[in-house]
Amino acid sequence: MQDLGYIFEPRSVAIVGATTNPNTVTNVTFLRQLLDFGYPGRIYPVNPHATEIMGLKAYPSIRDIPEPVDYVVCAIAATHTPKLTRECVSAGVKVVAIYTAGFSETGEEGAKLERQVVSIARRGRVRVLGPNCLGIHCPKAGLSLAGSISRESGHVGLLSQSGGNAQNMILGLADRKIYASKAVSFGNAADLNESDLLEYLGQDDDTSIIGIYIEGVKQPERFTRILRQVSGAKPVIVLKGGRTVAGSGAVKLHTGAMAGSRAVWDAVCGQARVVQVQYLKELIDTIQAFVYLNPPRGRRVGIIGIGGGANVLATDACESAGLKVPEFPPEVRAELRKFTPPAGTGLRNPVDTLGEVYVDPAMLTKTVSVVAGWSGVDTLMVSFPMLLGVRLGVQFLRDGIEAVAKAAKDAGKPAAVVLQTTDCAEGEMLALEMQKQCLAVGVPAYWNFTQAALCVSHLVGYHEKRNPGWPVSIAEPTDRHRN
Amino acid sequence: MQDLGYIFEPRSVAIVGATTNPNTVTNVTFLRQLLDFGYPGRIYPVNPHATEIMGLKAYPSIRDIPEPVDYVVCAIAATHTPKLTRECVSAGVKVVAIYTAGFSETGEEGAKLERQVVSIARRGRVRVLGPNCLGIHCPKAGLSLAGSISRESGHVGLLSQSGGNAQNMILGLADRKIYASKAVSFGNAADLNESDLLEYLGQDDDTSIIGIYIEGVKQPERFTRILRQVSGAKPVIVLKGGRTVAGSGAVKLHTGAMAGSRAVWDAVCGQARVVQVQYLKELIDTIQAFVYLNPPRGRRVGIIGIGGGANVLATDACESAGLKVPEFPPEVRAELRKFTPPAGTGLRNPVDTLGEVYVDPAMLTKTVSVVAGWSGVDTLMVSFPMLLGVRLGVQFLRDGIEAVAKAAKDAGKPAAVVLQTTDCAEGEMLALEMQKQCLAVGVPAYWNFTQAALCVSHLVGYHEKRNPGWPVSIAEPTDRHRN
Repeated sequence: MQDLGYIFEPRSVAIVGATTNPNTVTNVTFLRQLLDFGYPGRIYPVNPHATEIMGLKAYPSIRDIPEPVDYVVCAIAATHTPKLTRECVSAGVKVVAIYTAGFSETGEEGAKLERQVVSIARRGRVRVLGPNCLGIHCPKAGLSLAGSISRESGHVGLLSQSGGNAQNMILGLADRKIYASKAVSFGNAADLNESDLLEYLGQDDDTSIIGIYIEGVKQPERFTRILRQVSGAKPVIVLKGGRTVAGSGAVKLHTGAMAGSRAVWDAVCGQARVVQVQYLKELIDTIQAFVYLNPPRGRRVGIIGIGGGANVLATDACESAGLKVPEFPPEVRAELRKFTPPAGTGLRNPVDTLGEVYVDPAMLTKTVSVVAGWSGVDTLMVSFPMLLGVRLGVQFLRDGIEAVAKAAKDAGKPAAVVLQTTDCAEGEMLALEMQKQCLAVGVPAYWNFTQAALCVSHLVGYHEKRNPGWPVSIAEPTDRHRN
Repeated sequence: MQDLGYIFEPRSVAIVGATTNPNTVTNVTFLRQLLDFGYPGRIYPVNPHATEIMGLKAYPSIRDIPEPVDYVVCAIAATHTPKLTRECVSAGVKVVAIYTAGFSETGEEGAKLERQVVSIARRGRVRVLGPNCLGIHCPKAGLSLAGSISRESGHVGLLSQSGGNAQNMILGLADRKIYASKAVSFGNAADLNESDLLEYLGQDDDTSIIGIYIEGVKQPERFTRILRQVSGAKPVIVLKGGRTVAGSGAVKLHTGAMAGSRAVWDAVCGQARVVQVQYLKELIDTIQAFVYLNPPRGRRVGIIGIGGGANVLATDACESAGLKVPEFPPEVRAELRKFTPPAGTGLRNPVDTLGEVYVDPAMLTKTVSVVAGWSGVDTLMVSFPMLLGVRLGVQFLRDGIEAVAKAAKDAGKPAAVVLQTTDCAEGEMLALEMQKQCLAVGVPAYWNFTQAALCVSHLVGYHEKRNPGWPVSIAEPTDRHRN
């Protein structure tokens, strides 16, 4: 296996196509990011018509730089890329990330140019990222591929054939206090491809979970093998672009990739026991579940919420996602009944309770503890009504969320919080605030049960596929108690 | 058919169970609402232990009120409801909305009590709403079933077996500038049931579209007939609670209803050509599509957005929802190419364009006009990247949204806007603000293509089922142009 570590921690970076105008896309996307991120290595803007760019000495070409450069960003016209690649070869460059578009995604002419560039690079032992990509994000090394993005390092490795989707994943995860170890936008994958990069992340000690947005596969057999290996060691969450006929047309125009058969793809993912998701938010929210939740022992969920109708829909959402909402046995209901007001409550699972329980952290703690204490439940989902917070002030929400986190932890069961927004702006604004509180106490937050159930089901599914004899408890304790 | 109009516009309301403490649930939910809403009729708090409540003269019982009361809210213990119902009969009350829970949803004892109350009411020609319900919302008449809710009247009729879900629908729709004509929370449906209420909304001149949250059906044959009749005249969007085994258990505990077979329900909805949805936000967002969009002529969508990966996923989302994303013919692409920058753009559908097009309303207008002008597209979806607004200021977003609305209107094609949040709080906050701009210029706003495609597909599906020979254009113009 090749060690690609050097591409993530270059000692020097050149930006070919940097300009004296600080506001061009190239400067904003690459040069300013390096400066903002405090990249500790040497930075070389390259432009034959400039002597200084954003306070840095500019060089007319790669060959004029007084040392071999590790990482080159190429942001010049496609037609000039063979010449640049030759210069990179003779200057001893290690890797060139080609931001420039206009290669295989544009048709046969572009594909020919792409093959030419790769051929020059390979002969000269220069690796190519892209073309048509944003390259490397490695906060530890001071490299970033997105503007206004967190500098924090974490343990999620990200691969994305799309630069925009890479940014979206990094930003969405950072909002959930989850940070990337390394992320790569790899575009057309003409040289370094998804197999190379996944293999690297699979053995990277900084990476414990992997998220992938992919459009097509360059080396299907190798990728299948590596996907299976890596997924055996770390959770891999995959979003495939181009699952539909028109989507695969869009893929061809985007990265020149062949989207391939959906059935084959599904089979590969199934065999490799990866988690497949359908949209970007689902990928982000699923990674959130993997990062914040210990593996549940099975599919059985205990639900606590306010409102009979909301709880009916919560139950449907869980069961539709493949989870179970088992009825509590009489002893659990009796225990809950001791402190739950009798009128307008239901204790069958969901616990359909009242605002007065939520505004009293001790009562909420007791409710969570009793539910979590029952061996028939593997995961807890507790919903908080945002509009009650609008009405009564948010302190009880903060206290309640903390109480849930603590009670679940004491009982050794994973818990997710659903921030019920009532689908209106007021609720959504407060949910954005309360999401921070949830993450601060270590529980993942979802806006609705549909999403929470989907993500928890992915988490359970991953462990089911990985561990024979899992889930631990298969027996369904519900029927005995159904009336 | 019975005319139930009188239950929505009572000349007087009594609240049985109002208290001197202004902050009890009963006072907050019912009495304060009437005062806040400026209910123009007479209000009678009823409580044997009070002489004045919230500034109003209180009466010891219904029979002590000096006039026959039209609408009585019952918020006293379940055991007292037979006595109250008898008093309502002798005092000439028209309808009693029983907020009190503890009836058939609690088991056989409660069911017996429920039958007793209904029997007394029917013999005495008093109609019952509920029990276990919030009753009537009719802003035109000054009646409301939710706190802090808009007083505006609109044209959406809402039926909900759950009071909480009724509130959620009203609030969520109001956020989209859509208002209820009438809404009813009808709980256990012991007397006035879903058939009575749907029949009424079907012929109500103030109601042009109907949303339903339902858990069980009291008179299946009658309901099937009425559902079919009403759906023939007005769009009916239905969310069924209790679609799963555990969900039907939750239903039984919530409203005492029998959720019934999902297959039978699906068949009934299919025959009645209603739109079935799976969750509450989908119901709200689908009603948004029906209210803001003229019926598209078919399933073909033209997509305009920024970012190759985002556009791939947008295409997949549309096709997965049953819409089509046909490739533009060469003449449309040539027309777009005239003013679209060549590098990093794609013009095959989606139009994958650049920020510089978005920040120039004239360019965006041209883009929309060319796409909308092609006969092969029935609906437009245009995404706006919120983070670009965070970076560049929101004015170009406002201008762009207005340009899209105008260009689509000029071309006579419906258009929906997708506010791309990048799944992070900053994007979501701005989306909440831009949603208002969208609605102000008459286009519906969605947070992602998954939801936009789902709702537009529901809209198209409704018209397909209703109009033989529809969609207008069945021929697929894509294959001719595929390369």
